[in-house]
Amino acid sequence: MPAHSGRHFLQIPGPTNVPDRILRAIDHPTIDHRGPDFGRLGAKVLDGVKGIFRTASPVVIYPASGTGAWEAALVNTLSPGDRVLMAETGHFASLWRELAARLGLEPEFLPGDWRHGADPAAIEARLAEDREHAIKAVCVVHNETSTGVASRIPEIRAAIDRAGHPALFLVDTISSLGSIDYRHDEWGVDVTVGGSQKGLMLPPGLSFNAVSDKARAAAKSARLPRSYWDWESMIAVNGTGYFPYTPATNLLFGLDAAIDMLMEEGLDNVFARHDRHAEATRRAVRAWGLEVLAADAREYSSSLTAVLVPDGVDADALRGTILERFDMSLGNGLGRLKGKVFRIGHLGSFNDLMLCATLSGVEMGLVTHGVPVERGGVQAAMEYLTGNA
Amino acid sequence: MPAHSGRHFLQIPGPTNVPDRILRAIDHPTIDHRGPDFGRLGAKVLDGVKGIFRTASPVVIYPASGTGAWEAALVNTLSPGDRVLMAETGHFASLWRELAARLGLEPEFLPGDWRHGADPAAIEARLAEDREHAIKAVCVVHNETSTGVASRIPEIRAAIDRAGHPALFLVDTISSLGSIDYRHDEWGVDVTVGGSQKGLMLPPGLSFNAVSDKARAAAKSARLPRSYWDWESMIAVNGTGYFPYTPATNLLFGLDAAIDMLMEEGLDNVFARHDRHAEATRRAVRAWGLEVLAADAREYSSSLTAVLVPDGVDADALRGTILERFDMSLGNGLGRLKGKVFRIGHLGSFNDLMLCATLSGVEMGLVTHGVPVERGGVQAAMEYLTGNA
Amino acid sequence: MPAHSGRHFLQIPGPTNVPDRILRAIDHPTIDHRGPDFGRLGAKVLDGVKGIFRTASPVVIYPASGTGAWEAALVNTLSPGDRVLMAETGHFASLWRELAARLGLEPEFLPGDWRHGADPAAIEARLAEDREHAIKAVCVVHNETSTGVASRIPEIRAAIDRAGHPALFLVDTISSLGSIDYRHDEWGVDVTVGGSQKGLMLPPGLSFNAVSDKARAAAKSARLPRSYWDWESMIAVNGTGYFPYTPATNLLFGLDAAIDMLMEEGLDNVFARHDRHAEATRRAVRAWGLEVLAADAREYSSSLTAVLVPDGVDADALRGTILERFDMSLGNGLGRLKGKVFRIGHLGSFNDLMLCATLSGVEMGLVTHGVPVERGGVQAAMEYLTGNA
Amino acid sequence: MPAHSGRHFLQIPGPTNVPDRILRAIDHPTIDHRGPDFGRLGAKVLDGVKGIFRTASPVVIYPASGTGAWEAALVNTLSPGDRVLMAETGHFASLWRELAARLGLEPEFLPGDWRHGADPAAIEARLAEDREHAIKAVCVVHNETSTGVASRIPEIRAAIDRAGHPALFLVDTISSLGSIDYRHDEWGVDVTVGGSQKGLMLPPGLSFNAVSDKARAAAKSARLPRSYWDWESMIAVNGTGYFPYTPATNLLFGLDAAIDMLMEEGLDNVFARHDRHAEATRRAVRAWGLEVLAADAREYSSSLTAVLVPDGVDADALRGTILERFDMSLGNGLGRLKGKVFRIGHLGSFNDLMLCATLSGVEMGLVTHGVPVERGGVQAAMEYLTGNA
Repeated sequence: MPAHSGRHFLQIPGPTNVPDRILRAIDHPTIDHRGPDFGRLGAKVLDGVKGIFRTASPVVIYPASGTGAWEAALVNTLSPGDRVLMAETGHFASLWRELAARLGLEPEFLPGDWRHGADPAAIEARLAEDREHAIKAVCVVHNETSTGVASRIPEIRAAIDRAGHPALFLVDTISSLGSIDYRHDEWGVDVTVGGSQKGLMLPPGLSFNAVSDKARAAAKSARLPRSYWDWESMIAVNGTGYFPYTPATNLLFGLDAAIDMLMEEGLDNVFARHDRHAEATRRAVRAWGLEVLAADAREYSSSLTAVLVPDGVDADALRGTILERFDMSLGNGLGRLKGKVFRIGHLGSFNDLMLCATLSGVEMGLVTHGVPVERGGVQAAMEYLTGNA
Repeated sequence: MPAHSGRHFLQIPGPTNVPDRILRAIDHPTIDHRGPDFGRLGAKVLDGVKGIFRTASPVVIYPASGTGAWEAALVNTLSPGDRVLMAETGHFASLWRELAARLGLEPEFLPGDWRHGADPAAIEARLAEDREHAIKAVCVVHNETSTGVASRIPEIRAAIDRAGHPALFLVDTISSLGSIDYRHDEWGVDVTVGGSQKGLMLPPGLSFNAVSDKARAAAKSARLPRSYWDWESMIAVNGTGYFPYTPATNLLFGLDAAIDMLMEEGLDNVFARHDRHAEATRRAVRAWGLEVLAADAREYSSSLTAVLVPDGVDADALRGTILERFDMSLGNGLGRLKGKVFRIGHLGSFNDLMLCATLSGVEMGLVTHGVPVERGGVQAAMEYLTGNA
Repeated sequence: MPAHSGRHFLQIPGPTNVPDRILRAIDHPTIDHRGPDFGRLGAKVLDGVKGIFRTASPVVIYPASGTGAWEAALVNTLSPGDRVLMAETGHFASLWRELAARLGLEPEFLPGDWRHGADPAAIEARLAEDREHAIKAVCVVHNETSTGVASRIPEIRAAIDRAGHPALFLVDTISSLGSIDYRHDEWGVDVTVGGSQKGLMLPPGLSFNAVSDKARAAAKSARLPRSYWDWESMIAVNGTGYFPYTPATNLLFGLDAAIDMLMEEGLDNVFARHDRHAEATRRAVRAWGLEVLAADAREYSSSLTAVLVPDGVDADALRGTILERFDMSLGNGLGRLKGKVFRIGHLGSFNDLMLCATLSGVEMGLVTHGVPVERGGVQAAMEYLTGNA
Repeated sequence: MPAHSGRHFLQIPGPTNVPDRILRAIDHPTIDHRGPDFGRLGAKVLDGVKGIFRTASPVVIYPASGTGAWEAALVNTLSPGDRVLMAETGHFASLWRELAARLGLEPEFLPGDWRHGADPAAIEARLAEDREHAIKAVCVVHNETSTGVASRIPEIRAAIDRAGHPALFLVDTISSLGSIDYRHDEWGVDVTVGGSQKGLMLPPGLSFNAVSDKARAAAKSARLPRSYWDWESMIAVNGTGYFPYTPATNLLFGLDAAIDMLMEEGLDNVFARHDRHAEATRRAVRAWGLEVLAADAREYSSSLTAVLVPDGVDADALRGTILERFDMSLGNGLGRLKGKVFRIGHLGSFNDLMLCATLSGVEMGLVTHGVPVERGGVQAAMEYLTGNA
């Protein structure tokens, strides 16, 4: 492989391009996690991260990647054999379901076509049937990273409420947190699962559970064994800014910087930026004559766009061409979408010119790889961007 | 607090002073954990880390702190209600025991006085009694971070063998790995638990399980629920240099540098350096007229030295004085040792002059705090260091 | 100003986007510039930098910016009142002339229109006239950073030779070195002036004089006072890898990395990359219906492109719009070109997608600012880039 | 050479140990030195640096090392053949004199023994003799880095005044600025020369001239040729936060951090810290039975201590032993002191424990190298430090 010049474009839907300010914050000698400087840092990030989740409840921070926070959400609230209702939105929903099954739960999977979000009506119908309240939790992936489809969380909350069902509501926001509007408290979510390496602009290695009072109450009787993931051991110590076991101190330095950056820009501005870049991307896709995987305009993801390639084209070979020729990483098709889509991440620390670069790389890659497309995608995106400041 | 000038001395027994080379390696944009560059990195560190454990078996790398690797060792090998024999060497052994209990195991604690390592004879006797082989695992902390006592792992292995007992042998090397001689394969250990933030000189956030064939075989029938910590899902994918879920990529950049540094110095040189600094420290302690907590010279830790303070002195107040006046963090007394000892970390990226600085800080701190000691500790250490190059 | 997200695009014609590898090399504790580690570093960079200049002669490295190296070239070779023939290629040639005048030299300026390079025929004619050899040096800016015009150095060398004139040949390569083909030895240049912050991808703070034997001989009788800039004091000590006064050590760490990077890519590949990006840029400019300032295709710069704005447009206001809206810095019109051109830097650590981002920012900025242009510039550039791998 | 573990101790009298906060500030992408962000930075550092010099007059910042600022002080104020009175305090005073001679000035050297500072009485006497005012400037090195002797600037100022002589007063503070009390305005200095790599804790590459109104007036008629070093071109542009030619942008990021750090600690605290460390060092030297080079207690340097080695000992061989065995760099004997002294730098970002480490390295090095000394130097230093908080 020839030596590449210039910057790599990491346009997978996470991990995202970590900004220098965060990398430099991490590049600091580790400090004593029992000392006073740490206590100040811990208190600051534990408080600040609540603003990102838009919650007044505790947010537990794990030294773990997002998969760990999935596990934490389940083991704190559920008991062996508990039934959980999960919505098949795509590959990550499927992985969460597998994880639940491995932990000894009984996941029930509402089928989906991987082009739509979780269906509020189907959830309502299933819960209404469940008169015994055998279902203990409803699990939904807010933004399905494998498909670029965002489920409508407030409508699902309303559906649960209409069914009058007491199940806990567990939501994965790993690829939406800090990118797409999300409100833990206002939307009545019980456990929100988050990760560091997407909209939070950090390297992977931290993950989160925002937990409602109802979830904490459920934890008291939940019987899945837990220790590393146990909320109450965390929350008890977090009050003073410390952690019950060694935290990932340097990533917390980065988290502190990330929260500051998001708040300086303003969360609503951050969301509007992501919405705008997503729309520009879809316009480029359509100009190329390609199809966006997400089938319902209400459910378009603002973090990423999954693009269907024409029959006969291997999306992974196309990605290989783009990586080799243009030094840009795109997301691959996962599970049943393998080879059929590529995914463009447009989330995190990002701006108009980085988007234009990204779309240029896709457009030139499609042409170079011989995919039959129209030119003009970047042009269409630029027209949208200039018209929508 | 006045602004401090110069470098902080982080002389707790971990996290340790992260060298610039490692911090700079971490300070690198995150890369695609599914791309070819990552595959090369993953293969390199997964192979290299085996050399640190001195094993040819797989080493599983978790995006988690050491407590997670403790949990991983148990959930992969054991089933609910299993009896495990644990040795009470100090606070961390006690925490591991609590963790086992919370997971639904039946830990049996061989009592200890927190000044000695695990007793091979007691282990042999208890195992010999256990004719039904109810005990499924023997768990020992190699280097007890709360006391500065290192258990004699090869002798414990021999004790298990003499008892003819099939229990698995699980060893925590969190504060010895890369600092004190340790040989996973030669010593017949089944699971070795390690962490990043001590002898490996990294920030916290990575932890390890080195796993023997016997341990992997046990995992097949172990019934504690597990998913995040599951070895086989890791090992299956690790063969190609990748991980089943998002790894802590930037800490892996650091691990790569750390392995290179340890190998460039030579592991045996690294161990000899730690031994020499520990002996110099003990000479200083004795010159001050204070007592080393570790009671048996065969079990002195080379990573840290716990020092008993005279009656009437609050070790934590002393530590506070040293932090404020000399900008040095020392380890506190944990559990039953609270206020009675302070702990000097002399592990990781360290050298003679850093040790002299550390001991100077302790000596000046003792005097400043009004602890009745003899001067001359640093002098004694320097004499040893110059006489033992 | 709103908080910007994502990376700033520094597309002035230098300083350029410093790659992380170089920034990280600089981010290293300063070392003793009299110690053995420095000696190895010094010897390596002093040798390596010769390859960048394509010379076997000494290259003097100054802790100074490029203006200092201009001064050094003159004070080492000339005496008060000496006549020097300089070519008016643009703003920087004019500044060099002013500098010569301030030092007490008698610069004679061959007039130019700021759209062409130095004219070999005019130089030949003037030298031929100078039968007394009053002219002691011919000074040419290889790549005029204010205009994007590259003078034809080999043709000027041939012109001097045809005139049979003994004048020294002094060439400024500040914005061409490491970006545009340049050969100190083969092209018979006596002093080549270079700087760190352009094609070498470093921050500003280092500058260079590559010096021929003829130049060193001239220095023996040159009578302009000099000390800091004195070549022989440097060269005498450089032989051992050291410097006569404190060097800019950390920038030398960066220079070491920069030389490695250029050599890993291969200088010829580096030049081809710059040529290709420059051509793509010109196609974009023409597609917008704008005019490239450089008037002669033989003299197009591969480092930057200066673009004329239509009458009535203030190029600096346009640049302000682009900076505010798209977080990209472009070069301004200097001297007589103030407000009439903007300059696009496409040099240094750069690639196809960064170029597309840059051109997108210009295209969107032109539209946003209301400049009457055609769209399609980025499109034209992409077509060239995909057709010319 | 074996791989070293831990941190190198850079205890030469500059460059000093650059703190992480400054290195990380430097490790930032270079910005457009003509853009608005730079203007804010420039204005801030140009203003802030005045506080370090304790002046309300302009401070010119050069992208150059200290030798350049020496040259700048002379070329801005003097004319060919001008007589300057310089005091022979040591090697650096001798180098400044050589520089003056090379520039065509007529330096007159008041002889010194390299163990004392400049003699106010001798200066007064010489100036009083100079009835024609042939002497245009008096040049003194405040802190002679080669000897560890600090001249008494206010007494010299008084001496000039008593002589009623109009000569300019030029003072080199390269190794005292930010370490030893210094007051440009109050002490009536006309040009103060400073550098970045000592008390300012930066890497080398920036240097300074603080200039009085009288100096600026002198510059109007000074006839040494100058361009790069010309004050007025700088000052004219500095008013808006910019520079007339490309500044060393990344070092200015560091300077900004350095000024903040010095002001946070408080300049008077910074000076007291240096004084205290210097006294502790001298007590160590005496405890070893060695002699401090500085002969007059009123002139002890607080930046560094030069130590005479016993006859028959080669100080450079001793330094080699210390570097190899203890990874610490000490300053060598310069000029006539070569091999006769070593110099301990205790300036910049430094604290009690770093000093104890340094003195431990010297003490162990002396013993290891077989130099006949008493032990107890570190002990003596610690006693002083604990007794003088």
